[in-house]
This record gives sequence, structure tokens and C-alpha cells, in this order.
Amino acid sequence: MEKSRLIQQLEFIKEIDKLKYIQRRTRLLNSDRHENDAEHSWHLAMMTIVLAEHSNKPIDVLKVLKMVLIHDIVEIDAGDTFIYDTAKSHDNTDEELIAAKRIFGMLPDEQAAEFIAIWTEFEEGISDEAKFARSMDRLEPLLQNTSNDGGTWREFDVPYERVYDKKKVIKNGSESIWRYAEELIDKSVEMGMLKKIE
Amino acid sequence: MEKSRLIQQLEFIKEIDKLKYIQRRTRLLNSDRHENDAEHSWHLAMMTIVLAEHSNKPIDVLKVLKMVLIHDIVEIDAGDTFIYDTAKSHDNTDEELIAAKRIFGMLPDEQAAEFIAIWTEFEEGISDEAKFARSMDRLEPLLQNTSNDGGTWREFDVPYERVYDKKKVIKNGSESIWRYAEELIDKSVEMGMLKKIE
Repeated sequence: MEKSRLIQQLEFIKEIDKLKYIQRRTRLLNSDRHENDAEHSWHLAMMTIVLAEHSNKPIDVLKVLKMVLIHDIVEIDAGDTFIYDTAKSHDNTDEELIAAKRIFGMLPDEQAAEFIAIWTEFEEGISDEAKFARSMDRLEPLLQNTSNDGGTWREFDVPYERVYDKKKVIKNGSESIWRYAEELIDKSVEMGMLKKIE
Repeated sequence: MEKSRLIQQLEFIKEIDKLKYIQRRTRLLNSDRHENDAEHSWHLAMMTIVLAEHSNKPIDVLKVLKMVLIHDIVEIDAGDTFIYDTAKSHDNTDEELIAAKRIFGMLPDEQAAEFIAIWTEFEEGISDEAKFARSMDRLEPLLQNTSNDGGTWREFDVPYERVYDKKKVIKNGSESIWRYAEELIDKSVEMGMLKKIE
């Protein structure tokens, strides 16, 4: 009994190796190399550990870590959706829900239910933990793009207004990190990495 | 004051992006592509969340997550040491300690001290958390090598006896995972992926 539970868990662990192949649009710091989802998830986990003290509200760090570590696993089936893609929905799509059920569903029932609940909580962005986790997810590409002379903003002609609109959710997780992020966005405009709509 | 603390933390967060370039000898599951340390650390974190229940002793999962997420950061300066390399020491080398002090030292003092303490605890392998974290670190390449027709064992002519000797520390973290690992090693010998010394 215990062994079959372990084998079920190991099948899941082997399956999620595929996250290492899911490429994001953003590139590593000062680099041409695209980041993959596994590296991205590790980086958000490190950011969570280091920056948790800046959360607006006290948070359960273990829960935030679980959120950021699993938040992109659905992309193994559903693929990465570029945040500034206007043609594709960024909501908790049917495709992602089917993916969550298939992949997390490989785990023993109560673990599958826990993972789906944590992923859903992250997607909804309502709890204090989800707000903080989402602010980490928005901060990392900001560090990347500003190190890459505008990165995806320049590559895909994304104007300041849309960047500001996406990034301002950082404030829901952390006022102090948002102050830093806002300055970084302003400086990007000054330096010509990011352009306002004329 | 708070801002300079945040900026110090963000400098660290940018510095550790370099972990994404540190290549390991092992390759992804069923793949020719080498794994990097950031992907590896993410995978160990996921394994920890999923498999924690199999620990011999009750463990602080948050602490184990911190261990596996940071355990390889010293390799940004010190490089990856191949586990079956007989010419190089695998102990907590001077080089790694200097790296830990430089990289974790970028953080505010009490965070730097916490990270160095966690990394040292992992390296010593004495606490229940360190034992479990180290069992995860030994299990992942076992899954990779058996999916890759022997992987690094075959590539570097590593015999069964040395593999068994390195892997048996899994038992210190989890008896039930070790039973599974031992079977997998035996099966690898049967299938000719791993050879005993004649």
C-alpha cells in the first residue's frame, strides 16, 4: 500500500521534469538565453524566502513557496502564455484546468486536491499568500527586462501603459517592493527602454 | 533604511541568476540535455513537498525547502563537483566556504548568517532535515540515470559498488524511499546499465 503510493508520487515527480523544457519569452539577466519554467519557479522561490519580510500582510511562507514552485506546472500541457499577448486569455483557462487535473491528478487523491487548491488560490490572487506570490511573479521579469535593454518590452513593442498596468499588482503584495518597481519602470522610460503611447 | 535593505536583497537575487548556467553531469529524464543547478534545485523542492511524508523522522518542511533551494548556490563560484570524481574532495571545501561567504554575504547580516547556517547544516547532514534533503539530492540523479540507460554511470564507468555506497545515505532520510531506490539499483544491474566490479 505504502509502496504503491510512493510509486504514484514518483510518477508525478518524473512527469514534471517536462517543466524544464517550457520556454518563457523573457531571457536570463544580461543574456540572450530564454528562461525555462523550472528555473523561473526556483528563482521565485528564492525571492520569496529573501523578500517575505516585505509583504504587506504576515504570510505563511511555506504556502507561498508551494504556490510559486507549482504555479507553472500546468504549462507542461497548456504552454506558456506571454503576459502581453492580447489574443489569448490569461484567466484560469479551461486548458489550464484540464492540465491541472491531469498532472496533479497523478498524485494520491488528497495530495492532488491540495495541489489543485493551491494552484487555484494562486490564480485567483485573493489571499495574502497569493498576492505576495503574484508580486514575485511580476517582479522577476522586470529585473530581467531592465537588465536586457528593455527585453520583451522592446522585442514585442509593449508600451509603458500596459507594463504599468500589469506590474501594479505588485503593490497588492508589497508596498515597499512596488515603490522600487515603480522607480525602475520610470527609469526604463527615461532611458528609452520603454516607450509611452504617443 | 528599509530601501537600502531591499536593494541589498535584490542584488543577491540578481547574482544568483548565475545558478542557471551551472551545468551538472546528469541529464534530464530520457534526454541528452544536461541539467543545470537551478532546475535541479526546483526539482528537489518539488520532491520534498511531495515526499516529505516518507521521512523517517518528522521534519520541518520549510527548512528542508530552504536547504534544497540554496544547497548548490556556492557552485556559482566553486563549480559543480561530480559526485563520482575521486580526484576532488566532496567535503565542505574551503572553496565552497569562501563562495558561501561571498554570495550569502551579499544579504543583510542576519539573513546571510541564516543562509550560511542552513547551507552548513545541509553539508553536515546530521539533522533530520539535512538527512531528508540529502536523500532527495541522491534520489533525483538515480531517476535520471535509470531513464537514460545508465547515464553518468555508463558515461564515466562508475561501478555498482560506488553507486550503492553513495546512494545508501538515502536510507538515513527515508527507509521506504531507500527500499525503492535499492530495487532500482538492483534492476539497473540486471539490465546491464550498471556493472559490478569483477
